[in-house]
Amino acid sequence: MKQVYFFGAGQADGNAGMKAELGGKGANLAEMTNIGLPVPAGFTISTAVCLEFLKSGVMPANLKLDIEKALEKTGTCMGANFADNENPLLVSVRSGARVSMPGMMDTVLNLGLNSVTVEALARKTQNPRFAYDSYRRFIQMFSNVVKGIESYHMEQILEEFKHKEGYQEDHELTTDNWKTVIEQYLSFYRKTVGSSFPEDPYEQLWAAIASVFESWNCSRAQKYREIHQIPNEWGTAVNICAMVFGNMGSSSGTGVCFTRDPSTGENIFYGEYLMNAQGEDVVAGIRTPKNLLLLEKEAPASYAELCHAREILENHYRDVQDIEFTIQEGKLYILQTRNAKRTVQAALRIAIDFVKEGKLSQNEALKRLNPADIDKLLHPTLDPNAPKRLVAKGLPASPGAVTGRVVFSAQDAELWSSRGEKVILVREETSPEDINGMYVSQGFLTARGGMTSHAAVVARQMGKCCVAGCSSLRIDSSQKRLFAGDLEISEGDWLTLDGASGDVLLGQVATTEVDLGEDFQTFLSWAKALTRMTVRANADTPKDAILSRKFGAVGIGLCRTEHMFFDENRLPYVRQMILSKTLEERNAALEHLLKFQTEDFVGIFSAMEGLPVTVRLLDPPLHEFLPHTDKEIVALASLISLSPEEITLRVQALQESNPMLGHRGCRLGISHPEIYEMQVKAIGQAALLCHQKGLKVYPEIMIPLVGTREELSWLKERLSKLAPDLPFGTMIEVPRAALTADEIAQCSDFFSFGTNDLTQTTYGFSRDDCSPFLKVYKQKQILEEDPFVTIDRNGVGKLLKMATELGRRSNSKLKIGICGEHGGDPRSVTFCYELGLDYVSCSPYRVPVAILASAQASLNS
Amino acid sequence: MKQVYFFGAGQADGNAGMKAELGGKGANLAEMTNIGLPVPAGFTISTAVCLEFLKSGVMPANLKLDIEKALEKTGTCMGANFADNENPLLVSVRSGARVSMPGMMDTVLNLGLNSVTVEALARKTQNPRFAYDSYRRFIQMFSNVVKGIESYHMEQILEEFKHKEGYQEDHELTTDNWKTVIEQYLSFYRKTVGSSFPEDPYEQLWAAIASVFESWNCSRAQKYREIHQIPNEWGTAVNICAMVFGNMGSSSGTGVCFTRDPSTGENIFYGEYLMNAQGEDVVAGIRTPKNLLLLEKEAPASYAELCHAREILENHYRDVQDIEFTIQEGKLYILQTRNAKRTVQAALRIAIDFVKEGKLSQNEALKRLNPADIDKLLHPTLDPNAPKRLVAKGLPASPGAVTGRVVFSAQDAELWSSRGEKVILVREETSPEDINGMYVSQGFLTARGGMTSHAAVVARQMGKCCVAGCSSLRIDSSQKRLFAGDLEISEGDWLTLDGASGDVLLGQVATTEVDLGEDFQTFLSWAKALTRMTVRANADTPKDAILSRKFGAVGIGLCRTEHMFFDENRLPYVRQMILSKTLEERNAALEHLLKFQTEDFVGIFSAMEGLPVTVRLLDPPLHEFLPHTDKEIVALASLISLSPEEITLRVQALQESNPMLGHRGCRLGISHPEIYEMQVKAIGQAALLCHQKGLKVYPEIMIPLVGTREELSWLKERLSKLAPDLPFGTMIEVPRAALTADEIAQCSDFFSFGTNDLTQTTYGFSRDDCSPFLKVYKQKQILEEDPFVTIDRNGVGKLLKMATELGRRSNSKLKIGICGEHGGDPRSVTFCYELGLDYVSCSPYRVPVAILASAQASLNS
Repeated sequence: MKQVYFFGAGQADGNAGMKAELGGKGANLAEMTNIGLPVPAGFTISTAVCLEFLKSGVMPANLKLDIEKALEKTGTCMGANFADNENPLLVSVRSGARVSMPGMMDTVLNLGLNSVTVEALARKTQNPRFAYDSYRRFIQMFSNVVKGIESYHMEQILEEFKHKEGYQEDHELTTDNWKTVIEQYLSFYRKTVGSSFPEDPYEQLWAAIASVFESWNCSRAQKYREIHQIPNEWGTAVNICAMVFGNMGSSSGTGVCFTRDPSTGENIFYGEYLMNAQGEDVVAGIRTPKNLLLLEKEAPASYAELCHAREILENHYRDVQDIEFTIQEGKLYILQTRNAKRTVQAALRIAIDFVKEGKLSQNEALKRLNPADIDKLLHPTLDPNAPKRLVAKGLPASPGAVTGRVVFSAQDAELWSSRGEKVILVREETSPEDINGMYVSQGFLTARGGMTSHAAVVARQMGKCCVAGCSSLRIDSSQKRLFAGDLEISEGDWLTLDGASGDVLLGQVATTEVDLGEDFQTFLSWAKALTRMTVRANADTPKDAILSRKFGAVGIGLCRTEHMFFDENRLPYVRQMILSKTLEERNAALEHLLKFQTEDFVGIFSAMEGLPVTVRLLDPPLHEFLPHTDKEIVALASLISLSPEEITLRVQALQESNPMLGHRGCRLGISHPEIYEMQVKAIGQAALLCHQKGLKVYPEIMIPLVGTREELSWLKERLSKLAPDLPFGTMIEVPRAALTADEIAQCSDFFSFGTNDLTQTTYGFSRDDCSPFLKVYKQKQILEEDPFVTIDRNGVGKLLKMATELGRRSNSKLKIGICGEHGGDPRSVTFCYELGLDYVSCSPYRVPVAILASAQASLNS
Repeated sequence: MKQVYFFGAGQADGNAGMKAELGGKGANLAEMTNIGLPVPAGFTISTAVCLEFLKSGVMPANLKLDIEKALEKTGTCMGANFADNENPLLVSVRSGARVSMPGMMDTVLNLGLNSVTVEALARKTQNPRFAYDSYRRFIQMFSNVVKGIESYHMEQILEEFKHKEGYQEDHELTTDNWKTVIEQYLSFYRKTVGSSFPEDPYEQLWAAIASVFESWNCSRAQKYREIHQIPNEWGTAVNICAMVFGNMGSSSGTGVCFTRDPSTGENIFYGEYLMNAQGEDVVAGIRTPKNLLLLEKEAPASYAELCHAREILENHYRDVQDIEFTIQEGKLYILQTRNAKRTVQAALRIAIDFVKEGKLSQNEALKRLNPADIDKLLHPTLDPNAPKRLVAKGLPASPGAVTGRVVFSAQDAELWSSRGEKVILVREETSPEDINGMYVSQGFLTARGGMTSHAAVVARQMGKCCVAGCSSLRIDSSQKRLFAGDLEISEGDWLTLDGASGDVLLGQVATTEVDLGEDFQTFLSWAKALTRMTVRANADTPKDAILSRKFGAVGIGLCRTEHMFFDENRLPYVRQMILSKTLEERNAALEHLLKFQTEDFVGIFSAMEGLPVTVRLLDPPLHEFLPHTDKEIVALASLISLSPEEITLRVQALQESNPMLGHRGCRLGISHPEIYEMQVKAIGQAALLCHQKGLKVYPEIMIPLVGTREELSWLKERLSKLAPDLPFGTMIEVPRAALTADEIAQCSDFFSFGTNDLTQTTYGFSRDDCSPFLKVYKQKQILEEDPFVTIDRNGVGKLLKMATELGRRSNSKLKIGICGEHGGDPRSVTFCYELGLDYVSCSPYRVPVAILASAQASLNS
């Protein structure tokens, strides 16, 4: 089995299709070499070697020989030789997994330097200061990566030296200064490790390779894989690549760029660079870099070469690329390219533009977007009219608008969020160790670092808001305080970030709906055209109904009626209806409610003109509507002919041990038929009023919580008389309904799976009570997925399948949909598509997600 | 189609197999005639005629002609002619449905009498007093049955007459007195009905037949059918039979007898008679009759004939018969025979004796008993050592010992029992109108009437306790008071009845276990020998375990461990375990509990030596164990290192919205592994201790509330280490477990269906909350059966079937049982047998029921 894959001089052993063996970075280096990009020569050690090493603890027998051969070829390409004292080849050693895990694993640069080769490098470059700076960087990274010595120890040595010499910046150090610092580094190394720093470049190399392999299993990487569901069995490759130097003087530089703006998707060449710097300086955000467009002036030839590379890359990969480059004394090298992380806004814009540019078909473009990301597009932004007090302004590193309480460390972010608090993580700059705290934060605010800093990259990837490089802030992490001008902000204070403008605002600022652009509508129309399975919305108000239409819903699949009952103007009548002792009083209350409900339905039906609206009759148990405090009870007693004591007794009598399994839904409809009768009358009257106004409306009547055919037929017999022409159907939300769907389908025009309740009853999980043990279940890997988020295919899914088959078998005209919250979960939507459902219905904000998921399911079927 | 079936002179058109056409009584009259019993001649009008009449409202065209022909034949047999003024044939008109509905429908006797034939009867019998007494009886019954005139109106006329004349008893009236009374009856009839009493015997007959048919639909009959699940479509036949008279002087008489004692089953000729009386006098309990054995002296020839009939009947019907007979001037007539209602004790004794006598095979005998009746055998009797105060002594009419609060009307019985009170119905005598009140009472106490009175018959049929004919009592129903000597008892006071001794006792008297006789054990051993599907018990204590064995259980299918936790000596440790903040405190509490549980298990395992004991680990949510009152909380705080405030907070934090679906069962076992570990250790240690004593014990570990394979395998991995040799299995009690039974079976040695919870989750019914709507569902006929009593075959049953098939398919060694309360319900046991389960487990008192049901299922399969 081939272990080492060479690339260089326009030719490579590997290619882009070999990510499994070479990792994403290695496959790309090979591919870039093959397509003629100026990549420094080098080679990749395969993931298989990593896995074998991690398993056995030793490197494969013939690996060293293969590497030595590859080093020789690399040297030939670059005109230098590894471990040569006169003309030494320096290399970088980098991890590279099958998918990108930014910042998760280790890298060693400048490997091959020692007390002899550093002099050779100084001679060769005629820049001893640079050579010794490189050497000290190498020592620092090697110590950290291979020996686990935290960087701050050596940083501290450097800082103390600078302090003593009165220096502010690194570049003030002379060659001799660096030599002194290096002495101190090597001494610290000896003291800490117990042996001398390795002089032999090969010894350095073997150690670095082993460390990169081992970094696959460090806890940070494991946590990252857990969050992103990356298999542990993939392993990482190691890329060993000739070093090129961006810090060889003013004609050298380094940068990171995107072939399009990863934040907006705009077709501009977007990036940042620093002249006379190493790549780490850009990525780590230690110096604030310059806008890429300035490179055209500063190094026009290199910029032109870079633009050429940009074109080659986008045409080749048919996607936006994220590129690392270095200019060594005027010669451009492309170090790395990969599909760019992007905001969902950018992803949308890019997909549309690529179709327009003929680079992708519509269907290919549809597959490019992750449906789960779509709803990020739809979340509110800051209300432009809300009062705001600007604290500071930073870089708009990742869009969105969030509000949260300030915390100053990843640990505190985890602590506060575990209490249910929304937090904003404020850091000088973030680092990979902060990943868990970042995951639970609403957004990040950093004082240093640019648009490609760690915080910015992670934020865009996670879809979180980020304001970066906000240099006017002073952060005192130890005191948990933030200073902006004369403003002092402490832990727990509220801040609002606007990732689109970079504004940092005091307190909680109101948000407003997004204005969906043309791109979104175009994209949605492509998706809708593809879906056999349509998407409806769960909406209870005209406002939500209008929003749903805007988001592409072709009907309302669940219009709950209880929200109408909870309105404070209506609640007294609802309570009177429940508690009244006389028929007159009850009928009077019902008359009032009939009027209200009719108005409600006119509003919703009108808003959904031309589209179906499935109205679910009253579902919750009556006690939910009753007063519970003494004050409320006394107030109610003054309105109806019952004493406070009588009301209290009735309230107590209606209490239930397990209201979820109690006297609700159709059970209530059967024991109190006047309620459903009033509701169906209201639906009928509303439809009539709409028709009289010339509106075409299509209400459907849906009965909740049916478990037996007899329940449904009993209600149908009574209710259908009151609205004879309307479709009449049922929720399928208890297991018995699914098990006897053949019987139930005989008196039903449609089924709508209520997968929330069905999941509760199938598992025997109360949604209100399960979080303590579901948390344990996830920790102990007993449940992989939250079954309330993604449909449990094995259990609940089996019931859905059974109900669909039994129902259709006994009623071929049966329409079947789903209206649980799973209707907006992409994987659940895929499952619904596979089941052959007619529609899914979900909350308005999830409608576009469901449309895209449904379209993708069509494309993949 | 034949409408009228004649019987007489040793020959009949029908036979015993024609109950559907002729009703039970008609088919029996035909059969008795055929087998040579002295039955008065007559004929039966078929049930088909009834149904046609009830449907169309008119009698079939040719019916009258058929009846006239049959009347002529009857007259020939009896030597008299219907409507003949000289030698008139009198007839009875009686209803007779396919199954006996005692007292439910109407009867008219002496039909054919009028102002002319009454004289002929007087002449013929030389007993004018009797003739006029018969005539007035006929008028009274006809008025009641045909015209709906309540009997008490005419009784009042008679009572007033007697009062005026200074008479105490009816027999003091002279012929002329009767004539005067009859005048008053006829006058009252005219006034009430608006026309004269019919003189024409045919007119009388047509009207009586129509009324009997119509009585099928009276509300009493409908209610009876509802309770006993008798289809409305069966209809009733009408039996018209020559009248014979027990009141023709001292050589005449009438009686009711059983071929064996229906109360004990003893093989003695058991019955009662009255000389010079009509049958109604015996059945209605108005005169207290004599023991049948006295007839041997009073009328030896008739008695010998009756004994001969007894033998013919038992040999022919192979069952104990309930016979009505009349002696008319020394000639015996058998009026009716039917399978005798009997107590379950008697049924058992009779079944065993019939097998011994060679009249039945063992298997036939096993089929004779209704499993649901068996548990009546097992209910406690009065504790002989309890202090008692005797109020009165009556006839031991139906065995059992019950305690309840006194009510004086059927209405009050319903009222009180609807409030959840146990009541004893106290009546002068009961009547068919009381049936609903009787149904809800614990037992009946009457002041008049004998062992075959209405109260006694109904009590034995319903399996309720009855003390009848307790003549020392004075009952004032209007004042709701009862006097016994100088004791006054009011409505709501407590009484205890001992149906075995006839004792009426003051207050609530303690009860004790029954001593199961040899018959019971014999019967049980026959049943057990037949059952492939065995029966275990649900038992949590050594006491229950011992009882279960006595009742025939071959293991414990469900030993709940939470009851052990609720013991007041242990609860503080349980609470400490739940609330402790330190590991030491928690471990200390667990150590205590380990000790307790080990003792518990040693007790139960020893009691069940040689048999399996399935121990279910802790099931209820932790909050059930915590204190709720301030006082309890303060008390607990003094025991553990928490303040009352901290305890209150924890108690609140553990509250759940739907505890049924909450943090319980295996969820608790996974989040608090130390609890199950302690329990399994206790099981292991207890088993070891038993083995050391030389006892062979077979514990099995059962996990509750499993829904996924992962839950079970996670627990199995941890717990099996602590008790490696014990079978390890799971409850199947949430739908998901049944749906994924193939996966779950892979790590399970056995399944036990927890059909209580499975029914709750499959329907989405909380057992604690469903009674309000289940009541409505029954009223509205939406649910036929309570699914918590009898397994819902269509829904829950489908899950059981699926789980059984999936489970066995993936684990062929899987043992499957059921441990919900359905395990003791005969119809559910039958279903379990059909599913092929290995065992059912039920409460100790239901074990024999389940054994018999299982045996019957084998016999019927």
